[in-house]
Amino acid sequence: MRQAQHVLTIATKGKGLVEITPQVKHWVAAREIATGLLTLYCRHTSASLLIQENASPDVRHDLDAFLRRIVPEDMSLYRHNDEGPDDMPAHIKSALTQTQLTIPVSDGRLQLGVWQGIFLFEHRASPHQRSLVLTLIGEEHEPPRFG
Amino acid sequence: MRQAQHVLTIATKGKGLVEITPQVKHWVAAREIATGLLTLYCRHTSASLLIQENASPDVRHDLDAFLRRIVPEDMSLYRHNDEGPDDMPAHIKSALTQTQLTIPVSDGRLQLGVWQGIFLFEHRASPHQRSLVLTLIGEEHEPPRFG
Amino acid sequence: MRQAQHVLTIATKGKGLVEITPQVKHWVAAREIATGLLTLYCRHTSASLLIQENASPDVRHDLDAFLRRIVPEDMSLYRHNDEGPDDMPAHIKSALTQTQLTIPVSDGRLQLGVWQGIFLFEHRASPHQRSLVLTLIGEEHEPPRFG
Repeated sequence: MRQAQHVLTIATKGKGLVEITPQVKHWVAAREIATGLLTLYCRHTSASLLIQENASPDVRHDLDAFLRRIVPEDMSLYRHNDEGPDDMPAHIKSALTQTQLTIPVSDGRLQLGVWQGIFLFEHRASPHQRSLVLTLIGEEHEPPRFG
Repeated sequence: MRQAQHVLTIATKGKGLVEITPQVKHWVAAREIATGLLTLYCRHTSASLLIQENASPDVRHDLDAFLRRIVPEDMSLYRHNDEGPDDMPAHIKSALTQTQLTIPVSDGRLQLGVWQGIFLFEHRASPHQRSLVLTLIGEEHEPPRFG
Repeated sequence: MRQAQHVLTIATKGKGLVEITPQVKHWVAAREIATGLLTLYCRHTSASLLIQENASPDVRHDLDAFLRRIVPEDMSLYRHNDEGPDDMPAHIKSALTQTQLTIPVSDGRLQLGVWQGIFLFEHRASPHQRSLVLTLIGEEHEPPRFG
């Protein structure tokens, strides 16, 4: 068993889902780990991670619209408005989605489902640089059968 | 440290929570790993994973009813309705719950709490075959103390 | 690669977010693991885990208020009210947040973002003893570069 770690920096353009599957796959492919687990970790509280359908842009639109409906940018609802109307909703949307994702690797490839992509979800209105920590733990060869 | 991987296929009967604790425990028990971590990963975007109370069927009913209330099957709310009124709500419900769960193993057993069960949450109205990847990383014996 | 496991018990004072970052950092620091992953697991279905902004108490207040709005303590909405009006809402709030968190470790330290703290989220009105399992997997030294 061995491991590798990497910081992936993603530039966002304001609110919305940014697909990061290609960058993540590229890094995993170069690690020569046949079997194991990849963990992505988002070092922010106003952006988050999500596995979601990556074929239809409408899915991303509808998911974003849903979150705007249940977490409205209405400053009268929140005490914490230091950085504007999108500040506290960004923290809530992060809490409702994921700060961390762990995805299996087999045959040297991420075991995403056919329709699954990995997304960084930016919850702030303005563009940000987001820092993700990738950790891959596994083995170069298929594991020996045991048990 | 060593690892094992397995694909668990679960047949669902349409919307609702399916307890998979017995199948998962059975696979872990046969691996002879005393201490480590089990990661379950759901390869779908309209079904998800959840740790939840497993004693009362009413909890499952109420959780399902709550999600139907906040994510209504009203096609006028969504652009993505390709596969019917349950299509986009299924993606949203998956986003609000988990695609992946990691559970500790000690003394060769999953360290679930007394009332916890592992559930596959089917969000589509029709029955589906769902594919879960299980990865167990750990050691055959209790770890030596260090640090 | 090696690992360590520990049970951390946290006393809560009823509903609200309890920051546990100091206790978790303290345990990790004593393990002498330079690089790896820490997994926290909550063995309860009416308390959960969350990475959240830890500078402003208003964020915690607003997050709590948001969850009370979308998951009201109205017994007519639920079948499962065995332990009072906070019973079923506690299970739903747990389902919407996290039972488990995995956080990377580099240079012997948790790679939390500048504004991130680790919180135990108590969803019951009365004080409880909550049991968390911490599992750290990694290496004493920085990993050799490979791939």
